[in-house]
Amino acid sequence: MTEPTRRELLIALNAAPALSRPAAYRLAQELDRWSTPETAEAPPERLAAETGVPRAQMRKALTAAGTAAAVAAQETTGAERLGARIVTLEDPDYPPGLRHLAPPPPVLYIRGELPAGPAVAIVGSRRADAYGREAADLFARTLAGAGVAVVSGFAQGIDAAAHRSALAAPDGRTVAVLGCGLGVDYPRGHARLADEIAARGALVSEFPCGLIPRAWHFPLRNRAIAALTQGTLVVQAALRSGSLITARHALDLGREVWAVPGRIFDESSLGANALIREGAHLVQHPGDLLEIVLPRALASQLPLPAPATPEPPPGFPGQVFAEIPTGGARLAEEVAVRLDVSVDKVLAALLELELEGLVKRLPGSAYGR
Amino acid sequence: MTEPTRRELLIALNAAPALSRPAAYRLAQELDRWSTPETAEAPPERLAAETGVPRAQMRKALTAAGTAAAVAAQETTGAERLGARIVTLEDPDYPPGLRHLAPPPPVLYIRGELPAGPAVAIVGSRRADAYGREAADLFARTLAGAGVAVVSGFAQGIDAAAHRSALAAPDGRTVAVLGCGLGVDYPRGHARLADEIAARGALVSEFPCGLIPRAWHFPLRNRAIAALTQGTLVVQAALRSGSLITARHALDLGREVWAVPGRIFDESSLGANALIREGAHLVQHPGDLLEIVLPRALASQLPLPAPATPEPPPGFPGQVFAEIPTGGARLAEEVAVRLDVSVDKVLAALLELELEGLVKRLPGSAYGR
Repeated sequence: MTEPTRRELLIALNAAPALSRPAAYRLAQELDRWSTPETAEAPPERLAAETGVPRAQMRKALTAAGTAAAVAAQETTGAERLGARIVTLEDPDYPPGLRHLAPPPPVLYIRGELPAGPAVAIVGSRRADAYGREAADLFARTLAGAGVAVVSGFAQGIDAAAHRSALAAPDGRTVAVLGCGLGVDYPRGHARLADEIAARGALVSEFPCGLIPRAWHFPLRNRAIAALTQGTLVVQAALRSGSLITARHALDLGREVWAVPGRIFDESSLGANALIREGAHLVQHPGDLLEIVLPRALASQLPLPAPATPEPPPGFPGQVFAEIPTGGARLAEEVAVRLDVSVDKVLAALLELELEGLVKRLPGSAYGR
Repeated sequence: MTEPTRRELLIALNAAPALSRPAAYRLAQELDRWSTPETAEAPPERLAAETGVPRAQMRKALTAAGTAAAVAAQETTGAERLGARIVTLEDPDYPPGLRHLAPPPPVLYIRGELPAGPAVAIVGSRRADAYGREAADLFARTLAGAGVAVVSGFAQGIDAAAHRSALAAPDGRTVAVLGCGLGVDYPRGHARLADEIAARGALVSEFPCGLIPRAWHFPLRNRAIAALTQGTLVVQAALRSGSLITARHALDLGREVWAVPGRIFDESSLGANALIREGAHLVQHPGDLLEIVLPRALASQLPLPAPATPEPPPGFPGQVFAEIPTGGARLAEEVAVRLDVSVDKVLAALLELELEGLVKRLPGSAYGR
């Protein structure tokens, strides 16, 4: 029997039903320590100690390795039947962002094409209200329309709104990361949405095709969402929402975290508000994200709202203000000559400006900002 | 004729109708340069140049100084008739917080008693909606009930809600800073609220009794509100709201600025949200303010909600997590001995914890946080 390739080993480990997910992750990273010809004769107890996994898990992994080539072939056929392909850590087209996870998922099943270019996660509550859906729609549609792929978790509520609104933008791209295997009708009624996403982006899962969702799959899905994107926008989330896990992973990965604020009496906004308290950027408009995610040159071509900078005072005081240097000093008399008005008029304006905290009086009749 | 006292000069300058407010402020700070026996013979042009005010303003100030004693007596009588007294920069009971303003108001008319102890400003839109009023009520009632005086601007909307809710708290104290003189029925229908505030706190104005409100009075009022308090809470404010001026003054004075977030589609919340973007603290609950404003010992006696710290994982992984030192390292075998369980069980828990980013595997079978 020929030795399985590293790629086949990864696919088999990832698909082994008896292996815990943490053990599969760990062993996928340590192939050299337990699956080479040199380690073939080593007792499982020693391999378990060296890789840091429980002995029972090590024995199951060795069993899975024995049938890796066959299992990998079967998984590949199954994926192809669903119009998908398998990408492993060994492959050059494994998404670079995911490699920053510690540990990364060994294998991805991808239906469609992962869009190149900038990507942002838009996540939130399954129990979104009208406010949350409207906000998700505004951000997803605008970002997708500006060429930023919208990544989300394919759940009801905010996730589905984000995918749908991204698809509603001309040429909008979106990626759904699943908490179950491809080919499972979950959530019920999302099959058509899945087809549309695959046609304009990708459905991605780290779980073998057909695997039903489990509660502990979703934190893993959330981690992958954070890693696939430059930043995560939390639209609406209660205090113990899974979206906050995605945000925490984004922070751990050094990515941006944004949140849409809401009313302090709305349970569904407490999580997003709490994120802002802890340092996430409050966003009011998609432009707040675009100016960070898109290269500046590109962003400047978009019709973004002007930033809210304080305006200089209107009228004559504004003209006087423009004459006062920042850091330096200018005499009231000099301003009067430059503006061709009386010193008294300039002094009256300077007193006003001083009261508003816009200029400072310096020794003599000099003023500075 | 006897020379007026400095106190009388301040009252007369502040009440002189022909003098601009900036000139009155400036000249009140520079009494020594223009109103002493030594300067009595100096030409007004020289005094104007030395104090940095327009010559016309200087001449009006000198005229006001000539009748200062009589004007001050008249102002004092007028204030007493309204149950108020006059406090000037020369008086020891001038509020210390206001002295930090550059320049401070020379004179205050005070009806009632300024409460000693901590004070917080609660300000917001005149056109508050139900959400804004509910938030103002929650914060004002809780702060006042905890012994923190609530300072606001006596306007319709958020201001009035803040005053009323502070009065609704047992022993609650509140201070209204006015944009007109005492004795003016403005806003219409607030006369009874004024009486209640004076009985449980104070009405304060820097303007002479009976002076009707002008648009340019309100920025001056907002500055005083910020200076009288340890921090300003903006409850609901549109993008060009006067509340943002109060918040800017609070920042300039090194005081705290808090804001209550709202929906991004509500015009009335855009100003408060923008403040948070620019660095104001987002608050969800009065406890967020109390823990900063009150001395810790006092705050710890209040039933505040627990801060939202991440919880350790439940069950056996939580027990394992508790055994892993922060910064240091411990062997899986050692944890197993300490918890009296098998190494495999500990390793399985450590793999889970590692996946959640709660522990790190170090060389060997050692783990740390």
